[in-house]
Amino acid sequence: MQLITSITEMQQLADKTRNLGYKIGVVPTMGYLHEGHLSLIRLAKQNSDFVITTIFVNPTQFAPNEDFEQYPRDLNRDLAMCQAEEVDVVFAPETSAMYNSNFLTYVNVEKITSKLEGKFRPTHFRGVTTVVAKLFNITKPHIAVFGQKDAQQALVIKKMVKDLNFDIQILIGPTVRETDGLAMSSRNVYLKNDERKNATILYQSLKFAETEILNGETDIEKIKSTMEKMILEKKIFTIDYISFNDAETLDDLSIAHPNKSILISLAVRTGTVRLIDNIMVKR
Amino acid sequence: MQLITSITEMQQLADKTRNLGYKIGVVPTMGYLHEGHLSLIRLAKQNSDFVITTIFVNPTQFAPNEDFEQYPRDLNRDLAMCQAEEVDVVFAPETSAMYNSNFLTYVNVEKITSKLEGKFRPTHFRGVTTVVAKLFNITKPHIAVFGQKDAQQALVIKKMVKDLNFDIQILIGPTVRETDGLAMSSRNVYLKNDERKNATILYQSLKFAETEILNGETDIEKIKSTMEKMILEKKIFTIDYISFNDAETLDDLSIAHPNKSILISLAVRTGTVRLIDNIMVKR
Repeated sequence: MQLITSITEMQQLADKTRNLGYKIGVVPTMGYLHEGHLSLIRLAKQNSDFVITTIFVNPTQFAPNEDFEQYPRDLNRDLAMCQAEEVDVVFAPETSAMYNSNFLTYVNVEKITSKLEGKFRPTHFRGVTTVVAKLFNITKPHIAVFGQKDAQQALVIKKMVKDLNFDIQILIGPTVRETDGLAMSSRNVYLKNDERKNATILYQSLKFAETEILNGETDIEKIKSTMEKMILEKKIFTIDYISFNDAETLDDLSIAHPNKSILISLAVRTGTVRLIDNIMVKR
Repeated sequence: MQLITSITEMQQLADKTRNLGYKIGVVPTMGYLHEGHLSLIRLAKQNSDFVITTIFVNPTQFAPNEDFEQYPRDLNRDLAMCQAEEVDVVFAPETSAMYNSNFLTYVNVEKITSKLEGKFRPTHFRGVTTVVAKLFNITKPHIAVFGQKDAQQALVIKKMVKDLNFDIQILIGPTVRETDGLAMSSRNVYLKNDERKNATILYQSLKFAETEILNGETDIEKIKSTMEKMILEKKIFTIDYISFNDAETLDDLSIAHPNKSILISLAVRTGTVRLIDNIMVKR
């Protein structure tokens, strides 16, 4: 496994790899890897010949009041995990190499970035699409893998790829969960004991909603109101949103129609940590 | 020479061409080609093995009140000219293929796009950078050639390429002029007789400014005021701007310091036509 920090070196190796006829798969991450990331790496390995994992905590997707400085980092641990997964290259650039002091160019997807996460983090997706466009131009992949855990991000990136004609196939890997159902996240490490224990309510409330819909309940406000109660009963969460949206357009839904994929997503805060989770339901 | 209209077909041919070890050069144009474009094609041929000319009148770089509908078009004439220059591929997509009905993604370079042309055409450069990013992803070039005639556009594209890590070398070809000095432009065809005759004053005023600076004049307001008089004396022009800027940062200049590249640029209107021209001066 090679560790590359230079953009030019990465581009040259990507060119060489493509010219040898290999299919490149990239897994963009912010590091502090967990089983969720590893499942995406395995998905990339199944669908390509040469896997690049990028590790870069991207400042432009954090707002000034967010946890960029506190975001967990451990490159040596990440490298060992990538090595064990037989990743071919870890690309881990310095921030100063990715953003020159006079950086002025942003990629922005409109409309679908202004709801859900975008409503609470208005500059977040602009940072995501900008860094992903950069990473695509640096690693020159045939396929790129993202996680369903960040459901809106997956949609936004697919839209960017389609609109800007990136010749890259986007694969979305399923959310990996702890045995008690909590979605894996690098930020879980900051949950205190009782927060960690109570955080299982998020997935439980999503599973409750799924069961309701599969059983024929169509009144979304009714389901949502029960979910709210389940979460607030724990007394340690504030809710940013619980939302039912068309899984493709992200249009808000008030009725659960059959034969339609519904994205049920939520974001809550507890202590200093913000958690998100989601589930896709189709009756 | 091949004419390609399909995005997928173009991407596949670009991949194949790169894999054969050929260096791809692209010349993005809006068609209605003239000697200026042909000089860019020749520059591409000198610096690559496989030249793609794109012909696409890009709607997103025109404001609703501008001349998108009236912009001159003649694909058959353009194809004959490309054939004569031994272009390898003309890529000429339909508008509907380039912009799906739910297009939402834009590339934007900040700051340097808000002055000069950007002040008078606020959404223009966003359209340019978006379509150029798309064309880069479709034609996958090693080099791309643009004209110095659109000086600010050249700077903006170079900035986008640097910031988003497009692995593409940008070459800028010099402005080609008619024998009387008028910069070649597809829009010149819409100049009426007296407008065409008087339009020579634009380059004359730029050459006047150049001479003044080379002779040691440092007072830019003084030079600008004479240029204004020269142009307005013709009684048929209104001036959008005459501007002296740092050739790299586009900072406004009021003093012509030696050893500094100065971009002198102007935009005027006559009848229904808007003309731009510029000159780069360094004492």
